[in-house]
Amino acid sequence: MKNIPDFNIAFMKEALKEAEKAQKAGEIPVGAVIVKNNKIIAKGCNKREKEQSSISHAEINAIKKANKVLKNFRLTNCDIYVTLEPCPMCAGAIIESRIKNIYFGAYEPKEGAVESVIDLPSVYNKKSFKTQGFGGIMEKECKALMQSFFKSK
Amino acid sequence: MKNIPDFNIAFMKEALKEAEKAQKAGEIPVGAVIVKNNKIIAKGCNKREKEQSSISHAEINAIKKANKVLKNFRLTNCDIYVTLEPCPMCAGAIIESRIKNIYFGAYEPKEGAVESVIDLPSVYNKKSFKTQGFGGIMEKECKALMQSFFKSK
Repeated sequence: MKNIPDFNIAFMKEALKEAEKAQKAGEIPVGAVIVKNNKIIAKGCNKREKEQSSISHAEINAIKKANKVLKNFRLTNCDIYVTLEPCPMCAGAIIESRIKNIYFGAYEPKEGAVESVIDLPSVYNKKSFKTQGFGGIMEKECKALMQSFFKSK
Repeated sequence: MKNIPDFNIAFMKEALKEAEKAQKAGEIPVGAVIVKNNKIIAKGCNKREKEQSSISHAEINAIKKANKVLKNFRLTNCDIYVTLEPCPMCAGAIIESRIKNIYFGAYEPKEGAVESVIDLPSVYNKKSFKTQGFGGIMEKECKALMQSFFKSK
């Protein structure tokens, strides 16, 4: 694995637990946690089916909680751990929130907006601020969860 | 103005009213409405400051309401009218919701993800489904609202 800044694999394990919650609820198994100062401040999992909401992805649900915890629409000095490469909506929300690092598990070849289809963080880098993406973390475990879900359908 | 499919300027006027609501509340004045079968099914305005939520853009607020009205995470055969070119998060949410047409007013040269910085709908076009963007609708009025807001700050 490449040298990844400020990274702690324990947080990806927590994101995987969130993904498993989604799976148990019959949702596409994606989970996310947001970390500040080496502590989880918010968790979220995909609830699109349950809530019949196109917005209710794991990352958005985690960001909404983190906004409430910090009472701030800017998630300064926060990182996000997510089991699947974010879609354009979620990558955009992460950039909009000023999250520093995106650590993701499985690649999403058809939708991924951090590396696979497009690299939105690089497109929207500002001189004053930069979101960075790091993919393939616990990829095997994250991918296996997705594959077992779609095989069961 | 180019030939724009399924377009009705009355709906952009309603989006402008939403933007004015945001302005009165001290928010960046952006408003959106979602239309199905030539009828408004949901409205939203920017509430980022009030809610301290990075997600709370006009488009997202309108999409959340439309999901509830239709009880469906897919906004099939819906169009969105928005006073400002969507950011990447909102453009992504619009694509994710399967909204058909994006009619927007003012261009957003630094953030716009439908035409200005990037054309996300084209990047994410599927063979089976396509979101299309049309910009510069009531541009003068939409831009004037933004300019008067930033001049007052």
